[in-house]
This record gives sequence, C-alpha cells and structure tokens, in this order.
Amino acid sequence: MAKPKKTPRPRAETPKGFRDYFGAEVTHRAGMLRKIAAVYERYGFDALESSGVETVEALGKFLPDVDRPNEGVFAWQEDADLDKPGDWLALRYDLTAPLARVYAQHRNDLPNPYRRYAMGPVWRNEKPGPGRFRQFYQCDADTVGAPSVAADAEICAMLADCLEEVGIERNDYVVRVNNRKVLNGIIESMFENQLNNAFPDGISKQGLQSGDVLRERMNALTDDVLRTLDKHDKVGDIGVAELLGNGRKDQSGAFIEGLGLPSYIIEGFLAFLNAKGATNKKTIMQLHRVVENSQVGREGVDELETIADLLAAGGYGPDRIVIDPSVVRGLGYYTGPVFEAELTFEIKDEKGRPRNFGSVAGGGRYDDLVKRFTGQAVPATGVSIGVDRLLAALHAKGRLEDTARGPVVVTVMDRDRMADYQAMVAELRQAGIRAEVYLGNPKNFGNQLKYADKRSSPVAVIEGGDEQARGVVQIKDLILGAQIAENATLEEWKDRPSQYEVPRDQLVAKVREILDLHG
Amino acid sequence: MAKPKKTPRPRAETPKGFRDYFGAEVTHRAGMLRKIAAVYERYGFDALESSGVETVEALGKFLPDVDRPNEGVFAWQEDADLDKPGDWLALRYDLTAPLARVYAQHRNDLPNPYRRYAMGPVWRNEKPGPGRFRQFYQCDADTVGAPSVAADAEICAMLADCLEEVGIERNDYVVRVNNRKVLNGIIESMFENQLNNAFPDGISKQGLQSGDVLRERMNALTDDVLRTLDKHDKVGDIGVAELLGNGRKDQSGAFIEGLGLPSYIIEGFLAFLNAKGATNKKTIMQLHRVVENSQVGREGVDELETIADLLAAGGYGPDRIVIDPSVVRGLGYYTGPVFEAELTFEIKDEKGRPRNFGSVAGGGRYDDLVKRFTGQAVPATGVSIGVDRLLAALHAKGRLEDTARGPVVVTVMDRDRMADYQAMVAELRQAGIRAEVYLGNPKNFGNQLKYADKRSSPVAVIEGGDEQARGVVQIKDLILGAQIAENATLEEWKDRPSQYEVPRDQLVAKVREILDLHG
Repeated sequence: MAKPKKTPRPRAETPKGFRDYFGAEVTHRAGMLRKIAAVYERYGFDALESSGVETVEALGKFLPDVDRPNEGVFAWQEDADLDKPGDWLALRYDLTAPLARVYAQHRNDLPNPYRRYAMGPVWRNEKPGPGRFRQFYQCDADTVGAPSVAADAEICAMLADCLEEVGIERNDYVVRVNNRKVLNGIIESMFENQLNNAFPDGISKQGLQSGDVLRERMNALTDDVLRTLDKHDKVGDIGVAELLGNGRKDQSGAFIEGLGLPSYIIEGFLAFLNAKGATNKKTIMQLHRVVENSQVGREGVDELETIADLLAAGGYGPDRIVIDPSVVRGLGYYTGPVFEAELTFEIKDEKGRPRNFGSVAGGGRYDDLVKRFTGQAVPATGVSIGVDRLLAALHAKGRLEDTARGPVVVTVMDRDRMADYQAMVAELRQAGIRAEVYLGNPKNFGNQLKYADKRSSPVAVIEGGDEQARGVVQIKDLILGAQIAENATLEEWKDRPSQYEVPRDQLVAKVREILDLHG
Repeated sequence: MAKPKKTPRPRAETPKGFRDYFGAEVTHRAGMLRKIAAVYERYGFDALESSGVETVEALGKFLPDVDRPNEGVFAWQEDADLDKPGDWLALRYDLTAPLARVYAQHRNDLPNPYRRYAMGPVWRNEKPGPGRFRQFYQCDADTVGAPSVAADAEICAMLADCLEEVGIERNDYVVRVNNRKVLNGIIESMFENQLNNAFPDGISKQGLQSGDVLRERMNALTDDVLRTLDKHDKVGDIGVAELLGNGRKDQSGAFIEGLGLPSYIIEGFLAFLNAKGATNKKTIMQLHRVVENSQVGREGVDELETIADLLAAGGYGPDRIVIDPSVVRGLGYYTGPVFEAELTFEIKDEKGRPRNFGSVAGGGRYDDLVKRFTGQAVPATGVSIGVDRLLAALHAKGRLEDTARGPVVVTVMDRDRMADYQAMVAELRQAGIRAEVYLGNPKNFGNQLKYADKRSSPVAVIEGGDEQARGVVQIKDLILGAQIAENATLEEWKDRPSQYEVPRDQLVAKVREILDLHG
C-alpha cells in the first residue's frame, strides 16, 4: 500500500520585508506614541482611527490602470457578489489618503475646521531594504478646513513640542519651514515673461490656448526643477546652475543634459535656495527680492513672514523653528508651506563615520485631497512624525531608559508546593511588583536561574523545605550579583552579599527595597 | 472635438464591514489596552508585535484548497519573482496563529517558557452584520512551553485582575473554568468499553487497526457531541438527552435525528454538564464520579482541582473564579483547561428587555499549534480579551468617564491680532491645558461659539479691541452656561454668572479654576 503523501511542514517565517517586534521595542514605541498623542490632544486635535483596509478607489493615487492595481500597495479583489464583480481593496499606504476619505464621508458631522490625529501601521508593497520594512508606523496630525497659515504655524509649534516631549532636547533639533508658493512664483514669473514677449499686445483667444500649452510645459518643468534643486546639497550652487542651464559633466566625465533655462531664472532659483539669512527677518527680505515680480511668490513670502511672527508670539523662536528656503523635500507634493524637523546632533554611521541624524518628521499644506471626492477644494495642512526614526535617534543618544525590567522570579524548589509560590507572586503583584513563578520544568535549578537571567530579572526568590521549616525565604539580588561577578574582588564580595535571608512575611518589603536600590 | 471623458469621482466610503472610530472611541480603547497591558506586564508577560500580514502557509487553518485561498481571510498573491510564483499573503485573523509562527521562528532566542502578550487589529473576511466588523481588536496573553496547569491557573487570575483593572467591579464578573479532558474521558470510556467487548482477549494487530477506525469515529463523534452539549442552555437536560440519544421533535414538529448514544453515556454527559456544586470541592467530587473509569478523565478533574487550589492560594476564591462544567464554548478548540469570563450584570437589549451581558473573554490550553512548524509538540495556554465587548459593557454601566473633554477655544475677534491669540493658547498649553485658536473664518462670531459647542469646549476666551485696551479678557464658562440655559431661573442666572472678566495675566489661573470646578 502506498504511503499517503505527507503535507510538508509550513515555513515559520515572516513574509519578506516584514518583521516582529519584541518587548522593549514594542513598549518604547507605545510610550512614544502615547507622549505624542498627549501633545496632539493638548493642541485640540481629536483621535481618529480608520481601518487598515480601504477601497482602491478611495485611496487614489494608485488607481488601477492595469488588471491588478497593486503597484506600490497590497491590493486584492473582493469576491464577486452575485454577478457584480467585487471591489478592489487595499491596505492603506499612509494616513493622509484615509483622512481625505473620512473627511469627505463624514464632513457634515465633523467640526469645521477638523483637527485630527491618527497613529498606526501603514503598508507599502515595495522592495524591502536594510532598515526598510513593508509595514511601519505613522503618527500624523492634520487640520482640515482651515485656510489660514495660522494652522500651519500651529503645526510647526506642535512638532517642536512633540520632539521635546519624547526626549529630544532643545538645540538638538530644528524645524525648517519653506513655501512651495515661492518656487511657483519664480517659475511663474519666467513664464509670464515668455507670454509677454510672445503677445506684447495682450493675450488673444489663440494666445490663451498657447498659454494652456505653456502652463502644461510649466508643470512638467516644475517637476524637473524640483528634482534638480533637491541635488543642491550634493552638487552645490555651480552644479545646480549647470543642471538648470546647459548641462554638466559629472565626476565620471559623463555629460548630463541641462534644463536649458535662461540665466536670470537660474539666478532666481539659486537666490531662493540661498536666501536663508542670519535671522528670519533677513531671510524674508531676501526672499522678497527673489520673487518681487510674481504675485503668488510674494504671497508665499508673506505667508512665511506671518508664520514666523505667529510662532515668535507663541515663544517659538528661531532657535527652534526657522524659515529655510533650502528645504526642497516635500515641495513637490505640497501646495503651500512645507516643514521638516531635523535632528542636528551627530551619530556614527555603519562605518563609524560621524553624520547628521537628519529628518524625522515632515509635512505641509495640501489643498486638493478632499476635492477628488466632493469636487470642492478643502484646505488642509498636516505633519507626519517618523516614529521609528525618532526611536532610532533616541536609541543612538542613549535616551531610551530600559523601562522593560524583567520580572521577579519565584523559583520552584518543590513542585508540590506550587500553591505557596503562587501565593508569593500574588503578594508581590498586589504590591505592584512585576513577578512570576517559574513555570518550566523545575527539576534543574540551574535552568531556573538561567531563565531569570534571560528575562533580565532583578530578583530571584528561593524557598526550599529548610527555609519553609524556619519560616524564611532567600532573596537573591541578581543585578548586584551580576555586578559582583563582573567586577568585585573576593573581599568586596564578602562585604556586599547579594543574597538575603528574611522572614517570609518580609518578602515584599525586602524585594521592594532591592528594586528601589537599583532605581 | 470630442470632450475627453471625465473620470467619475471616487466614492467616499469605508469598504463594506469596516468602520471609522472617532475621538473618545479611540482614546477609551487605547486606555483600556494600556490598563490590560499593565496587568499582563505585572504577571511577567512581555510585549510582542508581529505584522498584520503573514504568509497563508504560516497562518494555517485556511490553507489553500482552491485556487484562491481566501476563505475567511483576506488574501492575495505576491507578484511573481522571476519565474517563481509569488507567495500567498494574508491578513492575520487572530493573534494566536502568528504567535505559533513567531515561537517556531525565534524559539532559540526566546526564554522558555515564553510569556507574551499582544494587542492589535485582526481581520476576518466574513459577512458583516450589526455590530460585527471585519476588522476588530484582540488583546491576548499566552504562555508557551509550560506544561503545568499552574500556567492555566495564573492566566485565570490575570484575567480577573484585568477585568477589575478596567473597571468591572468584584461580583460583576465570574471566570468559569472547565476541562476538555473530562469530556474526552467520558467519550473515551465509551469507546474503551466497545473495544473491550469486541476484543475480550486483548487487542491483536488487526484489533489495533479496528482501534484506529474507532478512534476516527470517536473524533467525528466528539464534534457532534460538542455541538449538542452547546445547546444545553436552550433545550435543557431532556433536550440534550434526546439529541444524544434517539432524536427529538423540535417546536415546529420536525424530527431531528439523534446521535444514537447508549443511555449510560448520555447520563455521563448530563452528569458532566450538571456537575457544578455549591463549592469547587463539591464540583470536583461530582466530576470524579462521572469519569472514574477513564484515566484521561481523572487527569482532567485532577487538573481542575489543582487549578482551584492554586487560585485559592493566590487569594482568588470562588467569588471570582469557579470550576463550571457547563462551559462548553471553547471545548472544541482547546485540548485541556478552558476558561471564560462572563459579566454577570444585566443590561437592556435592543428591545429594552433585560439580559445578561455574557462573555467578554475566553481561552484555554492548546498544545499542538507549534507542532505544525517544528514537529515537536509545545504546550501552550492563553487568553483573549474581547476589548470591544468590554468597552460596550463599561459603556452600558456608565463607567466610561468622558475623559475626552474638548479644548478651550480662544476666539478670534480681530484677525490681524492672531499672534496675540496664539500667545494665549501657547500659555494655556504650557500649563497643560488643552487649548486652541479658532482657525475657521472668524467673520461670523456665532460660528465660533457653535464650533466650541460642537467640540464640547469647557471654556471660550474672548478678547476684542475694547478688552485689549483695558488689558483684560472675557472668559466664558460654557459648561455652566449650558446648565444655566437648561435649568436656571432668571434669579439664579443673575447669581451665577457664566462669564468673567479678568486681567490678561490671570487668563491661565481663571481657566484652570473653571476646569477644576467641573472636575
């Protein structure tokens, strides 16, 4: 008789690009989210929790243009319902797209403006890399329905408060603020000039159509300009000028085509990037000079000035929040003010070289997200804090206290006396002390102490038959024991015993004393 | 020229069976999870957070037997990698299957036994119903690698502590404990008898094979028996006896086939269901009588006795935790002790009729989950708390304090003085008071007060040009204002003004005073 084919055992593996988080990794993150939520609440933001699953239609951006619309997202099709094909569903890839859907769906019941915060996992169907995972946390706050830049200013202040609340010290961070409108102003003034040159007598109907074509060219060009400006910290003023102009030879000698912009425009962009002065006031003055010919550009600079004034009034001076036109990241996505929080201290990279820690949060104004659903533009601005990067920063600075202390372990000397040991842990727990009975096979006492070691237990409790008969327990200070084992001479060891015999009814008091000793 | 076809606007809707949670719904749940986590930690359990996505292979249970393995789960196939077909991935449907995977994957690095807790959303691809959603929270604690029922006892005690910690009072709940082994014992003794009758001279090789067949029949029968016993609270002793025996006519007159079991076995089951005595001791005695002929049955009763003893030693008496053989739910899934926490107070159902609130948590011992991966059986026991049901219970009892108080709203009387208003909220926030400036269009002052009302703001602050000139602010107690508007006579209204004028530098102190007044 043929043996029935055995099903192979399943592999015990996380899917590629996912990971598990253990102990302190979980509690530290939870603690950080709790602190950030408290700041968000203090600023009047309300919690919102939408589900991880949305319709692909509502998420947008990754709309299906192929049979399987999972470019960048995890998506699947619902089972068909009778003869109606099932909806495509997907895991959310951020917390902003769901906010737009929630706001459009519930806008009649929500306060206006609507301040909300949200925190939770998001998923990206991307190639995982070192330190890049396909599920990670976001922690956002947004104000929907407030056109005033007072809303943007407030979010910058809140971001600074959040960083300090989680343990980043003043002067270890800076929130930089820029405005997409200033960039738009420079580009627009260039095209205005072209229009004026082409139609010196005013714009006819035909001219307007040419204007539409110009506008399309302008949008396309804007993307190219953004990509180029973003290289400023690598290639410097001259490199950017070449890339915006007639092209540039890179280090390998290869020639990179330029965008072919006229010099006066290139000068405008460089002046924009370098407009940061010693004070916010100076920066504003220099920006005004850059965009003096463009209405939207002047508006953008005025907004930055208002933001700086509002922040100063709230006590958030340029030691914490600065107007900085070199912030290019984010300019592509946002429509108005953009902000980025950077940690300014140095850490060592993988190769031990010092480098700046860099950005841990970013945000800005995006005024078109709700319009997709309702047809009406709804102004919105918000921030997203990179919780995992922030945790890494605190870790690098040694600022994550090891709150995750192991439990007191009550060892099992006599398995028939389990009830007595359970009574001990119950007493300890009722006193608020983390404690457990050893629940493995108690035969080998060494295994029990190894277990306590693996759990980072501060204290082990021992009560054998002899102790029971005498009404006492042995209490081992495992932290002190480890210190002694590492450092002490025999003399010191004798002076500082790490094991104490106390009457049974002083168990809790003695354990508490040892725990307090180690802080 | 044909107009380009417009893309229709996306629907702003959650997918079917999903929902959004707002404000206090989110913070109450977060608060409850925090309290439960604190108890779990106190018992020595460590946090674990695995990702929402697992391979279908690792999740098990819902393994693909069709082309699309999403029966009950949300599943999708990864993109193919070169010519290798992509893995099937799925959203986790509980926290236990991922635990088994995590334990199998990391077992060499984990302490043994491994106590872990986990909390987070899980997803079920099921038909949604009223109050049943396709994403919901679970909140589990499990001990893996501890064969001793001391681990089960501990989890029962922890469950009781959790309920009290979140606000369920003593005597408003009971944790009932049963044991699958007792049921197995009754069934086994029946088949033992059959085997003995068939092979009075001992079991030959051929007999063993017949034994295998019997064992298969036994397993199939067990499922049927469980389904029948679960109807005990509806059909009573006689109904169960009929359904286990020769069949039963239901209320409509239709005949339901019975399982055809012999009377002495049926009596065993009924004795089992009704074995609960006035004390745990009595219950144990009566159970012993039921299973005296079965080794596994006696073992099961002994385990229950040990659990009761251990719990009593820890101070968890039968006012909180009772041995109760009528707990049938869970017997099917688990292999040893099972437990269920029930809230014993009455609430009103949709039709205003009083009913018991019922079960809010359950768990038990399952010893085979890790074996799928490693081939080695690993004992495990755990509990899952139904957070959303528990929240509903606290809500029904009026025990969820409305912690989500709205922010103090600083109104905008003069939009050019936004910086002054920002300074006010900054002061309030620095004093730890939830506060915000009104960020909508300030033109219509009535809208600002309507907004404050919608936010449940306790206080509104008003400073117009007149106030500014005199160095004062107006502070409106909105809670008192609402009370007065509802209840007070004109006389009382005069005695208890709800608006105060204070010097600008006493803003924070006065707001604090009003907040303290309202608790």
